[in-house]
Amino acid sequence: MKTYNKICIIGVGLIGGSLGLALKRHKIASHIAGFGRNPSRLKEAKKLGAIDSCHLNLKDAVKDSDIIVIATPVGKIAGFAREVFRYAKKGAIVIDTGSTKSSIVSLIERMKPPGINFVGCHPLAGSEKSGIRHASSNLFNNSHCIIAKTKKTDEVSLKEVLSIWERVKAKVVIMSPDAHDRLLAFISHLPHVLSVALVHTVSSNDFKFAAGGLTDTTRIASSEPIMWRDICLTNKANILKAIDNYKRNLDKIAQHIRTSDASGILREFKRANEKRSIHLR
Amino acid sequence: MKTYNKICIIGVGLIGGSLGLALKRHKIASHIAGFGRNPSRLKEAKKLGAIDSCHLNLKDAVKDSDIIVIATPVGKIAGFAREVFRYAKKGAIVIDTGSTKSSIVSLIERMKPPGINFVGCHPLAGSEKSGIRHASSNLFNNSHCIIAKTKKTDEVSLKEVLSIWERVKAKVVIMSPDAHDRLLAFISHLPHVLSVALVHTVSSNDFKFAAGGLTDTTRIASSEPIMWRDICLTNKANILKAIDNYKRNLDKIAQHIRTSDASGILREFKRANEKRSIHLR
Repeated sequence: MKTYNKICIIGVGLIGGSLGLALKRHKIASHIAGFGRNPSRLKEAKKLGAIDSCHLNLKDAVKDSDIIVIATPVGKIAGFAREVFRYAKKGAIVIDTGSTKSSIVSLIERMKPPGINFVGCHPLAGSEKSGIRHASSNLFNNSHCIIAKTKKTDEVSLKEVLSIWERVKAKVVIMSPDAHDRLLAFISHLPHVLSVALVHTVSSNDFKFAAGGLTDTTRIASSEPIMWRDICLTNKANILKAIDNYKRNLDKIAQHIRTSDASGILREFKRANEKRSIHLR
Repeated sequence: MKTYNKICIIGVGLIGGSLGLALKRHKIASHIAGFGRNPSRLKEAKKLGAIDSCHLNLKDAVKDSDIIVIATPVGKIAGFAREVFRYAKKGAIVIDTGSTKSSIVSLIERMKPPGINFVGCHPLAGSEKSGIRHASSNLFNNSHCIIAKTKKTDEVSLKEVLSIWERVKAKVVIMSPDAHDRLLAFISHLPHVLSVALVHTVSSNDFKFAAGGLTDTTRIASSEPIMWRDICLTNKANILKAIDNYKRNLDKIAQHIRTSDASGILREFKRANEKRSIHLR
């Protein structure tokens, strides 16, 4: 299996750091160059073995890299891509790991120079924890990774990127950026917004009585706010649609409770219980 | 410390079974009589050491008991209390462990004969898992247990019941049944309803892509439907109020997203992140 001479990771947080660790573990890269704004975080990433060299200068990090991974918050991906395209060698493949795809992929594809390839990716891994200190070479094990394919996606590059994700043990699924954003609005962005609204609804004094239910349902509200702001701004229409659907389902249950409709309530709870047990552990 | 000659547990599910195990472990009872409808579940509870004797006949189970614990779903508690009061010895203390308190406590206090005591309790323990097979003597360790005190509550009985919960390592809080039901509507019943509505909103095909966020926020939707139906029917007004408050908070976030108000979104997410990190681990 192929070992790349140099892979560059821009942004060594949970995703970038974990990918670095996984690339090393599975011998996918001889050298990993890490770029970041924060010298101490870069040093920590190097100490943990996620990167081999620390760079505050993007040009140095990108230079001669076979693969360049942009693993920053969604709002910064396109800006970095623009710069990366100036420094990347001919034939290099640029990928991102952003949580929304339509706007990022279309922006980047418009600015991409010929001779350099871009493949938009989204590993569905991670948690409410962020930062290099939570990084793990196992993060992608058995998780899905979506590759956002468009008419402009180079087939050879797509195959290479697919192979990299599979070698770090992710289950790769290929779909359009729009299909990705619709899917993620429901399975990820909606739960996040709901969780935040729940935290706002519970009074500070009541939180100390929280048992498992409240703890679980609000866990993702502890996620990184900037990352989630960017997600909401770049997947607005889908998230609003998901919220509307959600409110209809909530109103339906509320109506059963309001009318003391015992069998209606039971039906809703049974259906949810059964549906979840079929689809999730 | 006092060891009771006989404690009777009605309903040997997660709560009843765990309480039996904890009562034995902390030497609070010499003999625990278990009552249930299902012989095989009773046998399992005995095998696990949660009860010493199995009873399909309520009178035998209750007879001569110092403490009788009604640990059934909310909808069955008052019915069992009525029967228990016929068989309980003078001076016995009857407690329940139901998740709502106002309607149960007022019903039971009205039917309670003189000479027998009743103290409504609610251990805030448990999870989406139900049944004796998930029971643990540690279930109440460091969890809150609310004792619902009214003007009619006998002070001596209250102290005894408080001591029992403290001996199984629960942190006891005393409040009125109404205060309990208002609190629980927000910290437990609302999250449950929200979780169920979310399961209904995600399409079956999309569930397979669920990562940690959706898994966590829907976990409690796998809880026992009948138990939760009873909770909704007996805490209707508080739950509807909590849902209304929730919808206002959700609409506020949706409005920020709709208007692409980046700083508004960020503010909401930051506030939730900070509030949760102050109050929960």
